[in-house]
Amino acid sequence: MEQVAKDFNAYMDRIRMYNQLMGVAGFDANTVAPKAGVAARAKRQGFFSEKIFIMTTSDKMKGYLEALEAIKDKLDPITAARYQKAKKNFDKNTKIPSQLVKEFSELRAKAHVVWEQARKNDDFDAFAPILEQIVAKSKEMVGHRLEAGQEVYNVMLDDYEEGMNMEIYDKFFAEVREVVVPLLKAVVSSKKQIDAGFMHAPVEKAMQEKISTFTAEKIGYDLSRGYITESTHPFCSGTHKTDIRITTRYDERDFISSFYSILHECGHAIYEQSTCDSIAETELSRGASMGIHESQSRFYENVIGRSRGFWNYIAEELKEYLPKSFGDITPAQFYEAVNQAGPSLIRVEADELTYSLHIMIRYEIERMLFMENLPVRDLPKVWNAKYQEYLGITPPNNALGVLQDVHWSMGAFGYFPTYALGTAYASQFVAEMKKDLDFDALVEKGDFAAITKWMTDKIHRHGSIYTPGELLQQVCGGGLDASHYTAYLKEKFEALYEVKI
Amino acid sequence: MEQVAKDFNAYMDRIRMYNQLMGVAGFDANTVAPKAGVAARAKRQGFFSEKIFIMTTSDKMKGYLEALEAIKDKLDPITAARYQKAKKNFDKNTKIPSQLVKEFSELRAKAHVVWEQARKNDDFDAFAPILEQIVAKSKEMVGHRLEAGQEVYNVMLDDYEEGMNMEIYDKFFAEVREVVVPLLKAVVSSKKQIDAGFMHAPVEKAMQEKISTFTAEKIGYDLSRGYITESTHPFCSGTHKTDIRITTRYDERDFISSFYSILHECGHAIYEQSTCDSIAETELSRGASMGIHESQSRFYENVIGRSRGFWNYIAEELKEYLPKSFGDITPAQFYEAVNQAGPSLIRVEADELTYSLHIMIRYEIERMLFMENLPVRDLPKVWNAKYQEYLGITPPNNALGVLQDVHWSMGAFGYFPTYALGTAYASQFVAEMKKDLDFDALVEKGDFAAITKWMTDKIHRHGSIYTPGELLQQVCGGGLDASHYTAYLKEKFEALYEVKI
Repeated sequence: MEQVAKDFNAYMDRIRMYNQLMGVAGFDANTVAPKAGVAARAKRQGFFSEKIFIMTTSDKMKGYLEALEAIKDKLDPITAARYQKAKKNFDKNTKIPSQLVKEFSELRAKAHVVWEQARKNDDFDAFAPILEQIVAKSKEMVGHRLEAGQEVYNVMLDDYEEGMNMEIYDKFFAEVREVVVPLLKAVVSSKKQIDAGFMHAPVEKAMQEKISTFTAEKIGYDLSRGYITESTHPFCSGTHKTDIRITTRYDERDFISSFYSILHECGHAIYEQSTCDSIAETELSRGASMGIHESQSRFYENVIGRSRGFWNYIAEELKEYLPKSFGDITPAQFYEAVNQAGPSLIRVEADELTYSLHIMIRYEIERMLFMENLPVRDLPKVWNAKYQEYLGITPPNNALGVLQDVHWSMGAFGYFPTYALGTAYASQFVAEMKKDLDFDALVEKGDFAAITKWMTDKIHRHGSIYTPGELLQQVCGGGLDASHYTAYLKEKFEALYEVKI
Repeated sequence: MEQVAKDFNAYMDRIRMYNQLMGVAGFDANTVAPKAGVAARAKRQGFFSEKIFIMTTSDKMKGYLEALEAIKDKLDPITAARYQKAKKNFDKNTKIPSQLVKEFSELRAKAHVVWEQARKNDDFDAFAPILEQIVAKSKEMVGHRLEAGQEVYNVMLDDYEEGMNMEIYDKFFAEVREVVVPLLKAVVSSKKQIDAGFMHAPVEKAMQEKISTFTAEKIGYDLSRGYITESTHPFCSGTHKTDIRITTRYDERDFISSFYSILHECGHAIYEQSTCDSIAETELSRGASMGIHESQSRFYENVIGRSRGFWNYIAEELKEYLPKSFGDITPAQFYEAVNQAGPSLIRVEADELTYSLHIMIRYEIERMLFMENLPVRDLPKVWNAKYQEYLGITPPNNALGVLQDVHWSMGAFGYFPTYALGTAYASQFVAEMKKDLDFDALVEKGDFAAITKWMTDKIHRHGSIYTPGELLQQVCGGGLDASHYTAYLKEKFEALYEVKI
C-alpha cells in the first residue's frame, strides 16, 4: 500500500478511537450516569466533539484527501470506502463557516428546551419563533454547500440517506399512499374484531428481563459480545463488533412493548456484530446507512417478529415466562393482538400498517417548508389536515400533533423519511431471500440462524463499504422499490382483517 | 492572572478531560462491558494512555513549567498546586528513557499473566524469573531519577505517598508492631468467645441491594451525584464531584461483606463529592494522596462502622432489611461479630486488628529486596517466617502466602505501606475531631452529617491542593503519628477480648 494510504488509514483509526470512547460515554450517559453530572458531561461531550470535528476537517486531512484523490482508482476497496466517506464529510463540514456551525449548535440547544416546554404546555406559538430560526439557519447552512441547480431539501435528504432525493421519495410515498390509505380505510370499516386486551396482564419486571435475554439469544444476538440494560428510550450502542449493546424499557402492564423493542434493537445489534473482521477496526463497521440499519431492526421486529409463523413457534416457549393468565392464549390470538391496526396520533406508538403514513406526513410537510416556503405558523393547520386526509383523525391539540417529535427542534430535516425505508428495504431483501431459502418454514421452525446467515452474507458483513444504493443494486438488482413493501402490507392486513381493496 | 498561567490551566483542563473520559471507560469496563470486547478496549486504553503521557511530557508542558518556575511565588494557590503536581510528574516521566518505559509496560503485562497462572498452580518457581526481571527493571527505572545520596526504595515510597520514606515508615511500623503483636497474642489466648456464625444467615441479593442504598444514604453519600452497582472487586470511580460512583459485590451467605465494602467505598466517594467548587473543574479534586484517601474509607468503614455506638444506632434500623433469623440479635452481638479478630493468611480478608501486620510484612520484604538485595527466590521462606513471627501462623502453601497479591507483578513496590496509613491517619483526625465534637455521641445518634462536615472542612474540600504532609500539619499539627492508632486498637481490643497487655 502506498505510504499516504497507510498514513490516512492510521489517521482515520485515531479518529475512530475518539468516536469509540465517545460511544462508551454516550452509553453511560444514557443508562447509569447520575443526572447531576449532566453539566460536566456536556462540557466533555463538547470538548471531544470539537476535537473530532477538528481532526476530520484539519489541514492534515485535507492533505490526505488531495493525495488520495490522485490515486483513488488504485486504492484497495476498504481504503477507497474510507476515503469516499471522509471526503464527503470533509466537504460538508468545511464549506460551512465555523461561526455558523457554532450559532446553529447553540440555537439547537436553546430550541430543544423551548420545544420541551411548548409540548408540555401544548403551546405551538411558543415554539414557532425559534423553529422559524431553525428553518432559516438550516437553509443558510445548506446554502453554503449547494451546487448549481441543486435543491436545498435534496441535500438534506442525501445527508441522512446517501443517494436519496425528492424524486425517489415522491414516487415511493405515492405508491405507499395508493395502497395504505385505502387499506387503512378497509381495516377501519372491517367487521373483524381483534382482542388485544389480554396483552396488558401484568408481567413483573424481573420476568420481562428474563424474556429479553431469552428473546435476544433466540433471535441470534450474541450476548457474549453484548449487554442488555434499561434506558428511557431504547437504543443500540456499539463501539466494536465485540461490544454491541442494546437497551429497552419495562412497563409491567405492557410486556409486549419491551419484547418488540428488544427484537428491534437486536436487529441493529446483529447487524453490527456481523460486520466482517477486515473492517472491524475501522469506522466502516457501523452499518451502511440509517435506512439500511432500520431495515435490519424492522426485519427482526416486524417481518419476522410480527409474522404468523413466528408466533406459531414462539408462543409456546414464551409461555414459560408469562403468568398463568396467558396460559390459554393461542398463537393465532398472539399474532392478531400484536398486529392490531388502526388510526393513531402518535408516530412512535403507530402500528406496522400506519407507520409509514405518519412518516409521509412529515416528509410532505418538510418538502413544503423548503420547496414552497410554507410558513412555520401554518404547520399545525397543515399537520392536522394531513392527519385527517390520510389517517381519518384530527389531533385534539398540538401536543398530540405537530409538537410530538423532537427532530425539527434539532434541525434534523430530511431525517424522518429514512424511518419509512426500514420495512420497505427489508421487504425487498426478503423477496430476494425467498429465492434462496424457504423463509416462512425457517421462521415457523425458529431457525433464525439460517436467515441471519443470508442477511450477513448479503448485507451485514459489508458494514458501510457500499452505499445503500450500491448494496440494494447488489442484493436486489435495482433501487428502492415500494412494491414488495405494499404487497406485503396488503397481503398481511387483507387476510388479518378479512378485507379486500 | 498572567497569560502563561491561564494557558497552563487551560492545558491542564484538557488533560483532565482525557482522564475523565478514561475514567468513564474504566468504570464501564469494570462493570457492564462484555468480556469479548477486552482486546478493543485494551487498544483504546493504550492509545489514550499514550496520548495523556505525551501531553503531560510534551515540549508545550515543558515550556509552561519553565515559564511558571520563574513566577511560582506569585501564583494563586490552585495554579501553584497544579504546577507542583504537573512538574513532579513531568520530571518523573521525562527522566526515564521511553524505551525503558515501554519495555517495563510489556514486562508487567506478561508478568500479570504469569502471576495469575502461578498463583492458581501454587508454583512460585514459575513466577520467580519474571519477578526478578520486574525487580531489576524497577531499580533501573528509579535509577534514572535518583539524586545523589537518595535510596531507590525511598523514591518508590514517595511515588505512592508524597513525603514518605523508610525513616518514617520504620518508626511507624515499629510502634505498630510493639502494640499489635502482643495484642494479637493476648486476643488469641483470651477466654472470650465471639459468636459470628449468625452473620452467615442468607440474605437475598435484592435485599442486600436495598441495604446498600440505605447504608450509603445514611452515612452521607449523595446518590443524586452517584450510583451503586456491582463489580468483581469493589471500587470508587469518580470523574467530577457531580458524578462519583461506587461498586460492591454480593454474597448471599455474607451480607456483612457488602455492607462494609459499601461503607468503605462511601468514604472514598464522600471525599470526592465534598471537594470545593473552586477546584471542581481541575485534577486537584481527586483527593490528596492514596493514604489520605484510604483514611476516609477506613474512617467510615472502621472508626465509625465497627464502633459500638454505630451498632447501637444501626442494628435496629438494619433489622428491617434482614431476615427473621436476625430478629433477636442485640447491637452488642453485632458489634462483637464484626470485630472478631485473629491470625489469618489473606490480607484482603484480614480483620481491623491484624490488617497492619499483613502490610508490615510486605513493607519489610520490599525493604529487603531493595536495600539488602534479598534474592527473589528467598521470598517464600522470608514471607513464611514473618507470618509465623508476627501472626503466629505459617501459610500451608505459596498460593495462600507470597503469591496472594497482584502488586509485585505490576512492579508496584512502595504501594503496600499506604494501606497501613488509612486507619492511622483516621485515628489522628479523630483525635482532633474530638476536641471540637462529641464524636461518640454523634455516632450513637446516627448524626453523621456533623462528622462529615468536620471532615469536609478540614480534609475533603481541599482535594489535593495540599500534600498529605501539609494536610496532616494543618489538621493535627504534626506528621504521621502511630500513637493514636495503637491507642485506638489497644483500647478497643482489650475491652472486646477482656485482655490487658
